Amino acid sequence: MPTDPEQACFEAGIKFGSLYHQFAGTPVSPDSADSLAQAMEEAIENQPYCESVTVEIREAELEAAIAEGSADYTEFTGRFAEVEIRVDYEGSRAVARMEMDDGYPLMRLVDVE
Amino acid sequence: MPTDPEQACFEAGIKFGSLYHQFAGTPVSPDSADSLAQAMEEAIENQPYCESVTVEIREAELEAAIAEGSADYTEFTGRFAEVEIRVDYEGSRAVARMEMDDGYPLMRLVDVE
Amino acid sequence: MPTDPEQACFEAGIKFGSLYHQFAGTPVSPDSADSLAQAMEEAIENQPYCESVTVEIREAELEAAIAEGSADYTEFTGRFAEVEIRVDYEGSRAVARMEMDDGYPLMRLVDVE
Amino acid sequence: MPTDPEQACFEAGIKFGSLYHQFAGTPVSPDSADSLAQAMEEAIENQPYCESVTVEIREAELEAAIAEGSADYTEFTGRFAEVEIRVDYEGSRAVARMEMDDGYPLMRLVDVE
Repeated sequence: MPTDPEQACFEAGIKFGSLYHQFAGTPVSPDSADSLAQAMEEAIENQPYCESVTVEIREAELEAAIAEGSADYTEFTGRFAEVEIRVDYEGSRAVARMEMDDGYPLMRLVDVE
Repeated sequence: MPTDPEQACFEAGIKFGSLYHQFAGTPVSPDSADSLAQAMEEAIENQPYCESVTVEIREAELEAAIAEGSADYTEFTGRFAEVEIRVDYEGSRAVARMEMDDGYPLMRLVDVE
Repeated sequence: MPTDPEQACFEAGIKFGSLYHQFAGTPVSPDSADSLAQAMEEAIENQPYCESVTVEIREAELEAAIAEGSADYTEFTGRFAEVEIRVDYEGSRAVARMEMDDGYPLMRLVDVE
Repeated sequence: MPTDPEQACFEAGIKFGSLYHQFAGTPVSPDSADSLAQAMEEAIENQPYCESVTVEIREAELEAAIAEGSADYTEFTGRFAEVEIRVDYEGSRAVARMEMDDGYPLMRLVDVE
């Protein structure tokens, strides 16, 4: 049988995969970034065992990507946000983050207790 | 060569398909419905030739669907919203709506000028 | 520091959330179900630490849902598939399944070693 | 009232937006590209008035993108495929393509009759 901390880690992973693959590809600009971030947070917080989701848009990165292209928006992808997700499974907690690592967004467990 | 009104209709279709397939499946509850609706509007308004997008959540339908299930949220799908999209392509306008028709969400052109 | 089994569970969760929210909403019919299942398997198997993904379409359920509606296809959602995902993280394995539970698709860890 | 050719253009747009935003973000590698392309074609061909969808993966572009990164897969986006969609609405036909234009994937109507 999986332990409660293992279940908490599984649930944290589900939330991360859900958030990323639900919203990747969304048209995003500096003006619409805040509403997208809030929708991502509130949507994933609906899922079971999810204590909190925080999405911070990396605005400079977003503006730089748009400046490189010919449109005034781009598609949401991992390098435009830092995300932290906290899960509580029957008292066991897992905290996971998506952060840039050598130019790539990396999802990782940062704390389990 | 396609005419400008035909281009406006094509662009209106793109926006509708984008909105629907980007956001279908998003976890949604009465508490998170407003932020989802706003994110949908602002995301799609980024797309070229898009004048406006309005998303109205059908709250009673959403609450009824959640009441039927065992969770306190559900997945966003067409029957939980009415959507109107206005496109202006070089002065030609197309207006399209998604509305319920005999129990199914139907996307249709309502005006081209 | 998270343990290797906890990391394996986190990675299994990521794969499940990814698979579900990438493909939920895809138009699907009995004729297109096989290609969708294969694409889901091969797409998610690209992800790190993923040993295997198997997607079995629940054909009777799919046909019944289509028979109820006015179209000859429907949108992919959890009740139309059983999914098993196996992850190997540095020698620690996690196996997770999505199966129907009281009418709802439930993702759960079935084995960690 | 919209004309039949305008309806055909609207329907072609819906298919393009659907295809793009359903599948953008899917993990893809040279090995999994064929199953993804087939699933995209068969999924969208389910939609009303859709005569055919052809997706050709731009393999050199896909391999180059993966070679630049640290993983052996990437996320599907418009620059990795050329797509043609044919719609027949009550005898009026619209043909649309997604092709690269100055480094960007552009969806455009190529023929209406």
